[in-house]
Amino acid sequence: MEIIALPHEMQRWAEAARQRGETIAFVPTMGFLHEGHLTLMREGRKRATLLASSLFVNPTQFGPNEDFSRYPRDFERDCALMREVPVDVLFAPEPDVIYPKGFQTWVEVTEMTKGLCGAHRPGHFRGVTTVVAKLFNIVKPHIALFGEKDYQQLRTIERMVQDLNFPIEIVPVATVREPDGLAMSSRNAYLTPDQRQQALALHGSLRAAEAAFKSGVRDPQQLVSVASAWLQKTPEVQLEYIETADAKTLEQVTHIDRPVVLAIAARVGSTRLIDNLVLVP
Amino acid sequence: MEIIALPHEMQRWAEAARQRGETIAFVPTMGFLHEGHLTLMREGRKRATLLASSLFVNPTQFGPNEDFSRYPRDFERDCALMREVPVDVLFAPEPDVIYPKGFQTWVEVTEMTKGLCGAHRPGHFRGVTTVVAKLFNIVKPHIALFGEKDYQQLRTIERMVQDLNFPIEIVPVATVREPDGLAMSSRNAYLTPDQRQQALALHGSLRAAEAAFKSGVRDPQQLVSVASAWLQKTPEVQLEYIETADAKTLEQVTHIDRPVVLAIAARVGSTRLIDNLVLVP
Repeated sequence: MEIIALPHEMQRWAEAARQRGETIAFVPTMGFLHEGHLTLMREGRKRATLLASSLFVNPTQFGPNEDFSRYPRDFERDCALMREVPVDVLFAPEPDVIYPKGFQTWVEVTEMTKGLCGAHRPGHFRGVTTVVAKLFNIVKPHIALFGEKDYQQLRTIERMVQDLNFPIEIVPVATVREPDGLAMSSRNAYLTPDQRQQALALHGSLRAAEAAFKSGVRDPQQLVSVASAWLQKTPEVQLEYIETADAKTLEQVTHIDRPVVLAIAARVGSTRLIDNLVLVP
Repeated sequence: MEIIALPHEMQRWAEAARQRGETIAFVPTMGFLHEGHLTLMREGRKRATLLASSLFVNPTQFGPNEDFSRYPRDFERDCALMREVPVDVLFAPEPDVIYPKGFQTWVEVTEMTKGLCGAHRPGHFRGVTTVVAKLFNIVKPHIALFGEKDYQQLRTIERMVQDLNFPIEIVPVATVREPDGLAMSSRNAYLTPDQRQQALALHGSLRAAEAAFKSGVRDPQQLVSVASAWLQKTPEVQLEYIETADAKTLEQVTHIDRPVVLAIAARVGSTRLIDNLVLVP
């Protein structure tokens, strides 16, 4: 696996590969890899002749009171896991190369980032879309893979790609879960054994609402009530939101007559976790 | 000259050219071509094996009270002029292809668009950077040429390219002027013969300030006073601003110890005109 730290060297690598007729699949990451990342990478491996990844804990997508400085990092382990996939090239830049002095250009998807996590993490999605636009210009992939666990991020990036005409296909990949249902996340590493158990309430509440949906409930508020009631059985989990939204546009829905996402964000101790399910009528 | 209206067809053209090892120079325009545009195109012709241009009167860079609907248009004449250069491919899309229903992604350069024209045309540069980012992703050029007449636009696009890592070289080209000094602009077509004569006061005021600069004046306020005094000799010309700014960052300067741009915007009748000079100590 080649490791590249400078944007122009990564661009040269990508351009040379394209000239040879190779196709590039790309999985951007913030590192501390888990089976979710590896699933994205294996899927990318299948869909292109070359697999690129990036490892960059992006400061601009963290709020001032969020966990940027303590976000888990283990570069050597991440490299070892990528080599196993195998990843062909890893782009791993320093922050001051990505955001040099005088940096002042932002890419913003305005509407679909207003609700859900966007309402609770001001500036988060602007940081995400900006760094992903930069990575797309640096890695020049033909396809890029994103997990459905970060559902609003996935739809927002799809929208950005469409609106800005990036010649890149976005491939969504289903959330990878632990055997007991917990969605895999690098932030799960923060959890104590007790919190790890409590965190199951997120997926549990979604599944309770899904059961109601399958029994015929089409009122979003009623599904949210079912999910909330389930969550309250674990008082250690502090709800941030449970909401439904149009699965494609993320607009509010008042009656479920098309696919909707049921999304949840909650804190277990100081760890913020998210999860979601798509309900298809 | 090939004329392409759809983004994915333009992308296919560009990708095929790149695969053959061609290099692409790109001159984006809003049409109603004049010698300024043609100079950009001839310079592009020299610097790459293929020359692409675009013709799109971009609605998002016009304010609600600006001249979008009456902006001069002459597609057949523009095509004839491009064929003479010759331009190899013209991308000429319809507005609803560039801004389809649900469009909501914006590229914004935040700091250097605050002053000068940015202070008087809210949203203008956001419209410019967004459409240029889109055109860069659609036309996929190796180099792109922009005139120094739109000085703030040029520096803003350079900043966007650097910040978002577009693998594109921006080539600035000097302002092309009429024999009497008037900067060429599609908007000069709005001027009556009297206004055409009055419009000379813009360049005249810049040259008056330049003379003071050459005689040793290094105080920006004093240069602005000289330019303003000159302009007042033509009372039909309504000043919007005369300002100096760092020639690279567009930050304010209090003493000229590095290159600065002296920029002017003024109305002649209802026609808004701009011009500038760079002063190098």
